[in-house]
Amino acid sequence: MTFVTLPLCASRSVVPSLKCAACRRGSRLGLGGRLRSKLRSSPGSSSLRCLQPNGTPSAGHQGNKAGNVNTFGKTVLVLGGDGFCGWPTALHLSDLGYSVVIVDNLSRRKIDIELECESLTPIAAPSERIAVWNALSDREIRFEFMDVAHEYWHLLELIKREQPCAIVHFAEQRAAPYSMKGSRQKRYTVDNNVNGTMSVLTAVVESNLDIHVVHLGTMGVYGYGSSGGKIPEGYLDVVLPSGERRSILHPAYPGSVYHASKCLDALLFQFFARNDGLRITDLHQGVVWGTFTQNTMRHELLMNRYDYDSDYGTVLNRFLMQAACGLPLTVYGSGGQTRAFIHISDTCKCIALALANPPNRGDRVKIYNQVAETHRVRDLAALVARKTGASVHQIPNPRNEASENELDVSNQNFRSLGWDPVTLEESLLEEVVGVAERYRHRIRRDKVMPSSFWNREREEACRANATNSSDALAEISAAASSEWRDEVLKQLANGDDKKLERMRSALRDEP
Amino acid sequence: MTFVTLPLCASRSVVPSLKCAACRRGSRLGLGGRLRSKLRSSPGSSSLRCLQPNGTPSAGHQGNKAGNVNTFGKTVLVLGGDGFCGWPTALHLSDLGYSVVIVDNLSRRKIDIELECESLTPIAAPSERIAVWNALSDREIRFEFMDVAHEYWHLLELIKREQPCAIVHFAEQRAAPYSMKGSRQKRYTVDNNVNGTMSVLTAVVESNLDIHVVHLGTMGVYGYGSSGGKIPEGYLDVVLPSGERRSILHPAYPGSVYHASKCLDALLFQFFARNDGLRITDLHQGVVWGTFTQNTMRHELLMNRYDYDSDYGTVLNRFLMQAACGLPLTVYGSGGQTRAFIHISDTCKCIALALANPPNRGDRVKIYNQVAETHRVRDLAALVARKTGASVHQIPNPRNEASENELDVSNQNFRSLGWDPVTLEESLLEEVVGVAERYRHRIRRDKVMPSSFWNREREEACRANATNSSDALAEISAAASSEWRDEVLKQLANGDDKKLERMRSALRDEP
Repeated sequence: MTFVTLPLCASRSVVPSLKCAACRRGSRLGLGGRLRSKLRSSPGSSSLRCLQPNGTPSAGHQGNKAGNVNTFGKTVLVLGGDGFCGWPTALHLSDLGYSVVIVDNLSRRKIDIELECESLTPIAAPSERIAVWNALSDREIRFEFMDVAHEYWHLLELIKREQPCAIVHFAEQRAAPYSMKGSRQKRYTVDNNVNGTMSVLTAVVESNLDIHVVHLGTMGVYGYGSSGGKIPEGYLDVVLPSGERRSILHPAYPGSVYHASKCLDALLFQFFARNDGLRITDLHQGVVWGTFTQNTMRHELLMNRYDYDSDYGTVLNRFLMQAACGLPLTVYGSGGQTRAFIHISDTCKCIALALANPPNRGDRVKIYNQVAETHRVRDLAALVARKTGASVHQIPNPRNEASENELDVSNQNFRSLGWDPVTLEESLLEEVVGVAERYRHRIRRDKVMPSSFWNREREEACRANATNSSDALAEISAAASSEWRDEVLKQLANGDDKKLERMRSALRDEP
Repeated sequence: MTFVTLPLCASRSVVPSLKCAACRRGSRLGLGGRLRSKLRSSPGSSSLRCLQPNGTPSAGHQGNKAGNVNTFGKTVLVLGGDGFCGWPTALHLSDLGYSVVIVDNLSRRKIDIELECESLTPIAAPSERIAVWNALSDREIRFEFMDVAHEYWHLLELIKREQPCAIVHFAEQRAAPYSMKGSRQKRYTVDNNVNGTMSVLTAVVESNLDIHVVHLGTMGVYGYGSSGGKIPEGYLDVVLPSGERRSILHPAYPGSVYHASKCLDALLFQFFARNDGLRITDLHQGVVWGTFTQNTMRHELLMNRYDYDSDYGTVLNRFLMQAACGLPLTVYGSGGQTRAFIHISDTCKCIALALANPPNRGDRVKIYNQVAETHRVRDLAALVARKTGASVHQIPNPRNEASENELDVSNQNFRSLGWDPVTLEESLLEEVVGVAERYRHRIRRDKVMPSSFWNREREEACRANATNSSDALAEISAAASSEWRDEVLKQLANGDDKKLERMRSALRDEP
């Protein structure tokens, strides 16, 4: 019998500590004291089990939760598996029985440093959270530190060694505002995303293995309102000048450098599917909201990111955080923009469905719209305001986009596979507000207002407004500071309501 | 009075030698002994003239040849200005009165080293040929050694300093076969071309200058036969499912990684024109043939490249070289592929026309098809064979493409500007054959057959044929070697026909 082995990255801090639930022998789990004590007090820790000598886990692991697909023993590389979508997906696939290798260069965590803003939720170090998952789940996720865009030979070697059935490709800079922040970020986004995609496609061809590539695209490739009706899934049926009917790749109308990079990816997929017969699925995802999934909730150290800043915070998550912190909800422009949304747990489910349903070799790229529902931004703000009592504040739009648009999207491909998505139910909204409330002491309030502008005209408009509407800003600031002050008072009162009320009275301006 | 100043790169070898034709004082031209003596014997050397103290050339320079466009004093950066299209274009623009700065990292020359194959024509070092041009023309071309794709801050600094009216962007890996040679070349092509384009667009935005970007695209972005009729110039009028008419960017059907990289460029142009109001012209060029232009013929040291190898040699130039060397013309597959062609001198003219006719700020990207005529490959081979007596040899196609296609292309945009292109006239074909004959001793015969294959299936087909058709290959080889032998005999006989015939007899197998 061998023990659960740790990913390489964590082996430096190996501490023989936890015991196998079956054999009671110490396992080589690389967990420090804090993690060990947390795990001991966690209900999941009793499920720790050793791996069999052949590397397969002991009883209870053979089942899979992906319908009639046999996942067991199938290896999947999750590129970008440390990120907001990548981490819960890696856990979900591991839970389904896939042997998951996370490949990540931790660029998202490093961008936190650059932006001087961290995830609202505290997230554990990669080796730490992987070790916790492996201990709790009796699965084994492994980790490879790698820059997919620039370390081609490392990726190729990994593919040849692991012979994965599929590669899930999240390894891209994923924030539109960040991609418009400045020259460095524009160039980084294209360099990272396009070279990353080229590395994956080229390595799959060179490996000569039959590997299904599943890529996370974006609804933003379609533009908003450019399809002449419902947005189809990837391909648009048009009539050419000759009168001939043709199914073409939907014309690209990217709204940012980030969206453009995904359009470039899409063209590369078309070429490699046609020229080399690669199996490729491209998932055009909507705006993701939420933070927790069933798997990330199994332990605090498995917690997922929650970005709330103006660069990485997606609109609904930003609103929920603002509501939780007593800040006004900042709506860009008229809020007439309609966007497609999906809950983070559905991201995971959709990717598992895509993995279980690869296209045939020689098929054209399979494209799914990975969206649950559409909402107008101002309606979302109104919903959150109604529920939480937050105020809504319109600010000039830092983005160069249509002020109003309709959006009617087909998601028939996933629906036909039995997908029944989570929609904006109050309970889930409440849960996210709850998370934001719990960690609101971690918020950097100066990171919420827009700091990336699409072009000079937008930047000038936003900055002029910032000067002209000092009253409104003062109001936001006052709300924020009174909110903050009350938070401090509560902490000082330490649960004593009378003491709290006395302190509040003492601070009131009225006599 | 100051003298013609040398580009920085050449200043290391400055030799005060040539005299100004006007003042007879020695100029600081960086030319070695060989170049000096050549220049003295060249008719152009008498036109050497000094620059005025303010940097303007002396009399005779003020006119421009671009119709009613005042080019004088306008600076143009020619990125990739050392290459096959870039060099004659730089000379042409300089001749028209533009102040030209060539920006190049000399990657094309370096790829020669990697492929172990040089231009058929001997080309002078960059500093040498620029110095000759500056001396002969009384213009001043300058040179900046730079990797545009990766040295962004250098490019930005140059743009801010030079404040060019336009940037002509040739700085891309331009060979489809090379882009399919292997993983390294696939990745290099996308990395270099897409990052180069991003550098240019981002730097123009950051500079906040009104700079017209003129890019060399390719007819290959359209695919062949995917437009439902005549290929329009960039945009296709379609009817959407709703019945609405829409002018869309022509769907991309790239036939190689190289062509794909130009499709990616095209999407980036669309985004930057829309988001930042940049003026952008994209020229979808056909297959270029020929080597000389009026300007490169002004001196042997101004000679342009002539690529004949299977990676960089374009089809007609390859045929003409094969004919000149007594090799069979190698037609890929049935030769039923129809392609669009343009002579190198027309490349230069079209770029000058594009520069003189920029789009307005806020316009969509202006797209021209830069093609003179279309021909089927087997018809081209037959034409060259008829003219030169060469044989035609069909070999399996290393490319993954339709074996037959029609091609009907609009070139109305340039035609409407008065362009009257050179077509495949016999005199020009003869001239190119003449060049190839003159330098045929420089040919590496082993570089002519395909060495880059589009995918595994194509590679296997080509290699199987190479094994099965050893007779045909032996025939090619025998023809080549007898041709080569005779060349050596002629050199040994040194013009003495009787001696040559005696040596030929001595080598004949018959008694």
